[in-house]
Amino acid sequence: MQRIHFHEVVTRDGFQNEATFVPTDTKVVLIDALSRCGYAKIEVTSFTSAKAIPMLKDAEEVMGRIQRQPDVEYTVLVPNVRGAERALECRANEFNVVMSVSETHNLTNLRMTRAQSFASLRDVIAMAQQHVAINVSLSTSFGCPMEGVVPQDEVLRWADQFAALGVRGLTICDTTGMANPAQVARMARALKQRFPTLQLTLHFHNTRGMGLANVLTAVQEGIDRFDGSLGGLGGCPYAPGASGNICSEDAIHMLSEMGYDTGIDLPRLLDVARRMPAIVGHEVSGQLAKAGLCTDLHPAPSM
Amino acid sequence: MQRIHFHEVVTRDGFQNEATFVPTDTKVVLIDALSRCGYAKIEVTSFTSAKAIPMLKDAEEVMGRIQRQPDVEYTVLVPNVRGAERALECRANEFNVVMSVSETHNLTNLRMTRAQSFASLRDVIAMAQQHVAINVSLSTSFGCPMEGVVPQDEVLRWADQFAALGVRGLTICDTTGMANPAQVARMARALKQRFPTLQLTLHFHNTRGMGLANVLTAVQEGIDRFDGSLGGLGGCPYAPGASGNICSEDAIHMLSEMGYDTGIDLPRLLDVARRMPAIVGHEVSGQLAKAGLCTDLHPAPSM
Repeated sequence: MQRIHFHEVVTRDGFQNEATFVPTDTKVVLIDALSRCGYAKIEVTSFTSAKAIPMLKDAEEVMGRIQRQPDVEYTVLVPNVRGAERALECRANEFNVVMSVSETHNLTNLRMTRAQSFASLRDVIAMAQQHVAINVSLSTSFGCPMEGVVPQDEVLRWADQFAALGVRGLTICDTTGMANPAQVARMARALKQRFPTLQLTLHFHNTRGMGLANVLTAVQEGIDRFDGSLGGLGGCPYAPGASGNICSEDAIHMLSEMGYDTGIDLPRLLDVARRMPAIVGHEVSGQLAKAGLCTDLHPAPSM
Repeated sequence: MQRIHFHEVVTRDGFQNEATFVPTDTKVVLIDALSRCGYAKIEVTSFTSAKAIPMLKDAEEVMGRIQRQPDVEYTVLVPNVRGAERALECRANEFNVVMSVSETHNLTNLRMTRAQSFASLRDVIAMAQQHVAINVSLSTSFGCPMEGVVPQDEVLRWADQFAALGVRGLTICDTTGMANPAQVARMARALKQRFPTLQLTLHFHNTRGMGLANVLTAVQEGIDRFDGSLGGLGGCPYAPGASGNICSEDAIHMLSEMGYDTGIDLPRLLDVARRMPAIVGHEVSGQLAKAGLCTDLHPAPSM
């Protein structure tokens, strides 16, 4: 059974898109429950400014209160050197630094040119990588909602620049759900060939319904790490009403049914996933929590 | 560009699961719009009793009023000889006859044993196949919500019995969304090998989020015909709140983005898909109608 590693991003990427603040107690209880499900990594929070993302203003408190499990890496998003200093004090296992491959998206989302973002992240990496593993997430790697096509060579060019800095891992992100399986297969092959020693993760969104087909294709091409968000939380401002990140439990269930070893205790994860509508105050897009496992049989009605 | 054929089932399989009657005028306008989108087949209605399925009590009127396009086959569900007589008068291009591979599901759904269903459908086929093409749909071919596992050999055994009667096509149905891609690959290979001259269709549900991954896998294994339902209509009584049939426009968009020739005018189809929430009076699960095409770019905000 081939092992596939899952990273849970709901408390960072998922909650960041929610309108109503999720209480710190709820976040801590949720992360502690997720820590017992078998994830390889949990992206706990972001060390950004409280003004920019009020949802994650409790980053220090959450990091201080969660009960860490030895087999789980606790990763955090770090936008700049100030964030890196805060995150180091909180003993994160990994820093996730982010920029967009699309210039327009980077300007819109981070208010910097890509060159400015790279310079800033290079400073973070130089300051932090003797203390902590560094992962680089490249947003809009499969398309930009404003620029349209993002050439694969441009993704690889930015990946090269970070690889040269000695980072541990790369996450290639389909930020707004534009990737199709043929494109994913080409990207996965190029990444595996070019970065054989880096930890490679794919981050898909289900905005146009292709998320799990993209996961399947990437697995077929030898990728073994994926981000997912419980319940499929984490929308996109360009697609109101559409799905967000791929739903962790749906993706894990698919691979598990196919015979892959995801390391996840699926019934336990499903128990946690079923709390999500109450936590965020609305229905979520994940299917498995509504449908149940394939092995949850129904009684035949009496005739 | 390899050609993949799509069959639209929303007005039969989709509407059959809706609580509120869709007016005959609306059905006719919808089918006429779908007829201009490039489908290979449209499953218009079912010639069952008005008492059993009030939604489809207007089968004759709908068949009489739609404007048929020469490249589209208009297929109808026919449950028995009485239905076949009615459908023949309406000049359907194809009869779709249905039974379940799971005995328990067949008893629950059709109130007959599988042997009784087969005998009844054999009479339909004997009476009709000199006049019209016959397609056999085998429900619960990838699993039964009451029995659980449905052995692939059992599916092939029933398929053999219908093939021996000279039917034109077989549709292998994942009625409650239990199929996973590994299982679909095995089934597709077995079907292609065993029935090389039959028209083979796969019918997936997205109940557990695996629908489009299953389509992708089937295409990779050489299957080139799929049922889909506009907006993803067509739920399952065992999974309240979960998705129904695979969403036609989402599946067609994925294959189109990958470079397959689906024959479908996607912008036109999307216009029709966007009418669905108003027609059925509630949100639908399809994603593309909410997110838009990958080529629908957004303006960059002024900085």
